[in-house]
Amino acid sequence: MNPSTSALLTDLYELAMAQAYLEQGMTGPAVFEFFVRKLPPHRNFFVAAGLEQVSDYLSNLRLTEEELAWLDRSGRFNSGFLHYLEALRFTGDVDAVPEGTLFFPHEPILRIIAPLPQAQFVESRVMNLLNFQTMVASKAARSVLVAAGQPLIDFGLRRAHGAEAGLLAARASYLAGFAGTATVLAGMAYGIPLYGTMAHAFVQAHEDEILAFEHFAQAQPENVVILIDTYNTEAAARKVVSLAPRLTAKGVSVKGVRLDSGDLADHARRVRRILNEGGLSHAHILASGNLDEYRLRDLVQSRAPIDSYAVGTAMTTSSDAPSLDCAYKLQEYAGRPCRKRSEGKATWPGRKHVYRYCTGDGRLDHDIVTTHNDRLPGESLLRLVMKEGVCLTSSPGLSELRRHTAAQLAQLPESLQTLEPLTAYDVRISPALQSLAQAVDRNL
Amino acid sequence: MNPSTSALLTDLYELAMAQAYLEQGMTGPAVFEFFVRKLPPHRNFFVAAGLEQVSDYLSNLRLTEEELAWLDRSGRFNSGFLHYLEALRFTGDVDAVPEGTLFFPHEPILRIIAPLPQAQFVESRVMNLLNFQTMVASKAARSVLVAAGQPLIDFGLRRAHGAEAGLLAARASYLAGFAGTATVLAGMAYGIPLYGTMAHAFVQAHEDEILAFEHFAQAQPENVVILIDTYNTEAAARKVVSLAPRLTAKGVSVKGVRLDSGDLADHARRVRRILNEGGLSHAHILASGNLDEYRLRDLVQSRAPIDSYAVGTAMTTSSDAPSLDCAYKLQEYAGRPCRKRSEGKATWPGRKHVYRYCTGDGRLDHDIVTTHNDRLPGESLLRLVMKEGVCLTSSPGLSELRRHTAAQLAQLPESLQTLEPLTAYDVRISPALQSLAQAVDRNL
Repeated sequence: MNPSTSALLTDLYELAMAQAYLEQGMTGPAVFEFFVRKLPPHRNFFVAAGLEQVSDYLSNLRLTEEELAWLDRSGRFNSGFLHYLEALRFTGDVDAVPEGTLFFPHEPILRIIAPLPQAQFVESRVMNLLNFQTMVASKAARSVLVAAGQPLIDFGLRRAHGAEAGLLAARASYLAGFAGTATVLAGMAYGIPLYGTMAHAFVQAHEDEILAFEHFAQAQPENVVILIDTYNTEAAARKVVSLAPRLTAKGVSVKGVRLDSGDLADHARRVRRILNEGGLSHAHILASGNLDEYRLRDLVQSRAPIDSYAVGTAMTTSSDAPSLDCAYKLQEYAGRPCRKRSEGKATWPGRKHVYRYCTGDGRLDHDIVTTHNDRLPGESLLRLVMKEGVCLTSSPGLSELRRHTAAQLAQLPESLQTLEPLTAYDVRISPALQSLAQAVDRNL
Repeated sequence: MNPSTSALLTDLYELAMAQAYLEQGMTGPAVFEFFVRKLPPHRNFFVAAGLEQVSDYLSNLRLTEEELAWLDRSGRFNSGFLHYLEALRFTGDVDAVPEGTLFFPHEPILRIIAPLPQAQFVESRVMNLLNFQTMVASKAARSVLVAAGQPLIDFGLRRAHGAEAGLLAARASYLAGFAGTATVLAGMAYGIPLYGTMAHAFVQAHEDEILAFEHFAQAQPENVVILIDTYNTEAAARKVVSLAPRLTAKGVSVKGVRLDSGDLADHARRVRRILNEGGLSHAHILASGNLDEYRLRDLVQSRAPIDSYAVGTAMTTSSDAPSLDCAYKLQEYAGRPCRKRSEGKATWPGRKHVYRYCTGDGRLDHDIVTTHNDRLPGESLLRLVMKEGVCLTSSPGLSELRRHTAAQLAQLPESLQTLEPLTAYDVRISPALQSLAQAVDRNL
């Protein structure tokens, strides 16, 4: 059983509703849009991510014989619906903003137009995929912004929420501008550069710390990054210096050291001095240990001599906002725009365009969300990516998506590049969309 | 590619260290223990979960030909190590506390004793599995405690962190005392009872709300739970009343209604009155919508006439504490106890026992963490579950684990059943363990 590919990774009500739609012949075209209702506190923007996995999911959607047999045995569904499920393939159209694109509340980043039972069926997993990667990319981008060009590495697998989260957090953070990950499977699956050092256990397993360093260097001569905080950071830095000539004699060079605890800025200064005085000025310093964008900003601003950073749990779990207030809402059925009016959760009806306008120097100025028929100057952010269930282009590849994200982040006004919001980005709901909402309300 | 079963879902350094250990002939028995350093704010206890998935992982650990070929092509590892990986199977012993057992900081819930390279290799995924399910079970148990016996249902798939998180959150919350889940795959994989109603989209897709209710009832005559907040909650409740006789004539009964927005207690009272006056006093009220244990407690204390609750994002993501400060630490290698002394992250050395002592009325009184050789009266919480890579018993099954968890929660003193900590549970580090730590420090 592979939860990442099973079509039954969905909510029971999607099946119940799909059966009801079919019984009523309600198989007309439905328009669902995915968007986020509001920014988490302290956040300025979102980075769209997860489209590739959604495309894969939609392209490969089918139930296995085992799944169909289990549904049959459950007694919950009639045979007509089980036959429908047996033949179920996604045949709809998908519009989406490219991964790595910045977006803001109320702006759809994915639209599915498909026969109603299909468009309903895919809701749970589409949300599950877009919520997670967008959340992680949006969080990771904050670290990228404050890191001022210094490489960041994803060390978050161990506290990611399960297997897929570990794998896809590596992807989303790389897309957002991280330099790589420690998660081996992400290297194999996505070609993301891999980084790794050693654990405290390696040092502890040796009776002698310097022997541990030497053994590690022998085993990984191309990647000698030594963890020096197991017992006493500065003492260990001196051991690295004393070991270096022996390694050099064998043609092995110390690439760097890792700090993982204590006052990282203070240790980095002391260690830098020890390394420099010991002839290891080329060795870099990698810092890790409960880092997030705030600690990162403080370290960078302190001008601590740290060359790269590993960021783990806070990024992988988006610790300050471990979910987005996202929705996948029916906006139109059989040509009729719809709107949910639940208290505090009302949505804008109909299929939409998002237009973006920049200032003279290329920075984002404002966006306009409007109806699909209301064509404004400029280019809509949403592009057709699947037509009748077939992907129109293959994924551009992570490297290109990463460049796109970097270009997008560079377009952020300075006031939105900070960790604390100064002003909210200006997203305007067009008069046409406001009129449509009123018209829909009148019809209710 | 199935991230849930791939042996390469690990950190690069595990591979680098394993190769170094092998080169040095360091294949002696290593003892690693998994524990949590401290409680998140506002928390009183942890509920152990994830052992079954760890056992499956260890039992089935092997690299595929494709994975081995990719590692070979990466050029990072020597052929001796690749041959080792080809033959790699887990052959160690595992002690663990049963899933559903309460535990506290510094208490190991899993111990692995295996040849050092193996015990190191499995670190990342063992942590990934135990961190997540323990985190979710610990969070879900708080809702169970305040729900005063009312059924809780997991609705969290859409904002769970990926596929495996959605699936395993259903398992961990059921283990903690939830009545079931909406995630279909969790029903198929684990036999967890499934629940589901309808979405707002179902109502919106119909031009007429009452017609939507009728169509849903026809399609799911055994499970008529109607969502009534799409437009106006009380108006929709009256529609349910007006529809009921038509359904009764067809032998279909309204099982309940769902509220998903607004002031849930207030709506529940109004809706209850409407249903009762309309002859639907048997119909239950299910509440959902951004619920967590605090809102749940308030609703229960307000005596709102709500019969069951769906809890989603807050539980699935453990929103207030989306990770545990957990560690998997080398405690002993080749008979020599070890200890990490990094600032703020020092650990207790050696393999351990955890003894638990209760008050006369069966409530938890205090625990003692001590060395493995220091036998105290009573029973240690850790039990041998794998011997030389083979599981000693099959998993007890979720129903039994669920009963065990309920019994454990009933043993909590009242002061630890509250959402706000009043006193911390008393975990004592034995004199024997303190002496061992001093002895280890003297040797460094």
